[in-house]
Amino acid sequence: MKAIIQRVTKATVTVGEEQISSIGRGLCVLLGISVEDTQRDADYIVRKILNLRLFEDANGRAWSKSVMDQDFEVLCVSQFTLQCILKGNKPDFHSAMPAELAQPFYNSILENMRSAYKPELIKDGQFGAYMQVHIQNDGPVTIEITSPSGPTDPKQLSKQEKQQQRKEKTRSKGPSESSRDKGAQRYRQDPNASSGAEGDVSSEREP
Amino acid sequence: MKAIIQRVTKATVTVGEEQISSIGRGLCVLLGISVEDTQRDADYIVRKILNLRLFEDANGRAWSKSVMDQDFEVLCVSQFTLQCILKGNKPDFHSAMPAELAQPFYNSILENMRSAYKPELIKDGQFGAYMQVHIQNDGPVTIEITSPSGPTDPKQLSKQEKQQQRKEKTRSKGPSESSRDKGAQRYRQDPNASSGAEGDVSSEREP
Repeated sequence: MKAIIQRVTKATVTVGEEQISSIGRGLCVLLGISVEDTQRDADYIVRKILNLRLFEDANGRAWSKSVMDQDFEVLCVSQFTLQCILKGNKPDFHSAMPAELAQPFYNSILENMRSAYKPELIKDGQFGAYMQVHIQNDGPVTIEITSPSGPTDPKQLSKQEKQQQRKEKTRSKGPSESSRDKGAQRYRQDPNASSGAEGDVSSEREP
Repeated sequence: MKAIIQRVTKATVTVGEEQISSIGRGLCVLLGISVEDTQRDADYIVRKILNLRLFEDANGRAWSKSVMDQDFEVLCVSQFTLQCILKGNKPDFHSAMPAELAQPFYNSILENMRSAYKPELIKDGQFGAYMQVHIQNDGPVTIEITSPSGPTDPKQLSKQEKQQQRKEKTRSKGPSESSRDKGAQRYRQDPNASSGAEGDVSSEREP
């Protein structure tokens, strides 16, 4: 799972002529879910979005406060194009989780973010729609984070997270635990999985 | 070197009350240079920005046309925060190239992009300044690219690029060719290197 986090003065989403979402100061997050992502990836990303210190404190000391510390808002928008493999100059999105699986998973991620913070401060786009996302990047400050089980820069992990990863690696060496299996397992365990995921895959893939 | 490429309907940069830059349809690129980046990384990133097929053709076929095919514009903004290592929840930017080296390098990258395309269609921010970057992300469509010598997802490389990389790896195994050395070499060969790089490092690091 990959997230592009932009610190914003404000951000809005419009679909056609209609503004469907809007935040003031906070973070605009573009979220790309891969076919291999599980709940663990989602938990990591949610934790980082809410706790990353991207704001200054009252004395102007940079990189001191998180979005939660400041009571700022989060606008999260699903962005399958982040799961992109370049074939020469043509982007290929087969590693993105298909929309019918990604939509309930994405919704559950938003719910987890709301539970971990304040529901009214977490805003959403419109999954699968053709949107204009107006981002006023403040600084600019942009951070890319990738969850540990994706293709990860190991330098991004804290010592504790590395240990955790090693443990889980050791544990998951059973024969049936291919990453594809884990993805399917996650989906089967997802309480939202059977609720309507009516996203039109082809249009979501070709905005 | 890392670039976050957002397809935009329009994008502008303001510093204080003044709008210093503006494009219509095209790409807004946030560019993060690492201490280890060389001319090769820059060449790769410039090539990808200009040639990635992120636009539809006249018949509405998605992922068909590049920014150059369409005569669209590019707004490029330096973004050292993309070279971020997380220490827990605190971002650390020691892997970003220091501003006094990054500024001439960044300027040369912009020049190369202008030479490879049309100079009047490549716009810039203001290096090291505290900016508001207004991005109207169209879709949204966001692609992250990392140059081959950085921490790379090997799936992002075409077969040809992989072969090229293997060749260069073999060639560069001389004892003096640590990546730091290569960075210094690049800088010494850079005709802009001795021209004033007056960026205030500390403020660039703490926007």
